[in-house]
Amino acid sequence: MEKSNKVSITVIRRLPKYYRYLADLMEKGTNRISSQELSNMTGFTASQIRQDLNNFGGFGQQGYGYNVEDLYNQLRKILGLETLYHAVIGGAGNLGQAIANFKGFEDAGFKVVSLFDKNPNIVGLKIRDIEVRDSNTMIDYIKEHKIDIGIITTPKESAQGLADKFISAGVKGIWNFAPTDLDAPDDVIVENVRLNESLFILSYFLKRDFE
Amino acid sequence: MEKSNKVSITVIRRLPKYYRYLADLMEKGTNRISSQELSNMTGFTASQIRQDLNNFGGFGQQGYGYNVEDLYNQLRKILGLETLYHAVIGGAGNLGQAIANFKGFEDAGFKVVSLFDKNPNIVGLKIRDIEVRDSNTMIDYIKEHKIDIGIITTPKESAQGLADKFISAGVKGIWNFAPTDLDAPDDVIVENVRLNESLFILSYFLKRDFE
Repeated sequence: MEKSNKVSITVIRRLPKYYRYLADLMEKGTNRISSQELSNMTGFTASQIRQDLNNFGGFGQQGYGYNVEDLYNQLRKILGLETLYHAVIGGAGNLGQAIANFKGFEDAGFKVVSLFDKNPNIVGLKIRDIEVRDSNTMIDYIKEHKIDIGIITTPKESAQGLADKFISAGVKGIWNFAPTDLDAPDDVIVENVRLNESLFILSYFLKRDFE
Repeated sequence: MEKSNKVSITVIRRLPKYYRYLADLMEKGTNRISSQELSNMTGFTASQIRQDLNNFGGFGQQGYGYNVEDLYNQLRKILGLETLYHAVIGGAGNLGQAIANFKGFEDAGFKVVSLFDKNPNIVGLKIRDIEVRDSNTMIDYIKEHKIDIGIITTPKESAQGLADKFISAGVKGIWNFAPTDLDAPDDVIVENVRLNESLFILSYFLKRDFE
């Protein structure tokens, strides 16, 4: 039950971490967890955790903590993991194929139903049971199949063009792996995966360690 | 020239973004940029940008702004991009192979020199000119070739075991794609790529949009 519509992005970005730890606790068969224990696991303060979760409802009980299964299910609802979204991948190179095989999709309620590429040598390939189709057919496919998400795994030069096609075809969100910003209308959600930036952070810390 | 050894992680995580924008400006041949223009590009306030960069030296000039090439080169040094690090990939499935082909490595001064896997059907494969070797040979290879970075692209169940091997063989850092926390000594840098969490964020916002 949402108490507030304006939860800050900093809070929102902590939610998947809570979910990951709750999923592990579910796997282990743990019944209950206190905010202090969650604090020890996550590194966030117990008070931060309680505050974050209070944005969405009163899930815990003072003196008891949280029921693991209950909080797990609440987080699934909050994160929208109960809804199945259909996705297509634009760019069927190594990264696109790796993403097509990405197990995390099912956990998050996403299903990749097609890849698209321009390269005639790749068109027609099957990744598991998912076909690589010609990029000329992509817009029609997205409209016909009411695809929710477009995934960009092309080089950065092609990314905006691909995004424009996704947007014109009516996707609701874009998962972008290209190392560039995308222009998109406000009603299209863009989530960027910054692999280069992650590597630069690694490089920063490696340098610090060896000076 | 570093003025301070204790720069906060929040500042550090902004540096790769500045670098990305400076690299784009270099490509376009732009000579100078003000902190206000950088603010318009990045979304951070001009004052935040100046403060962040002041942690590392006085690069700008009041009334002039920053010299693009100079700031770009300074950021390369700060991020350690001038140093070449050698990496190996543990787990030569789709994701491992995609990472082996990842162009961003060269930009960041990383070179993948081998992949390792347990699967005899994959051992011996070549990804571009990089060989997949038997995982039994990994620790010796890392020691012999003074490998700096171990990259984890296995399922989460194998991740800690692989990390332990990397650490015992003497890597300085780990780039981890498995959706789990890793135990590592303080002198080994661990940078996690949280693909699942990125998807959960996308899912959160998609859900909000359609209620």
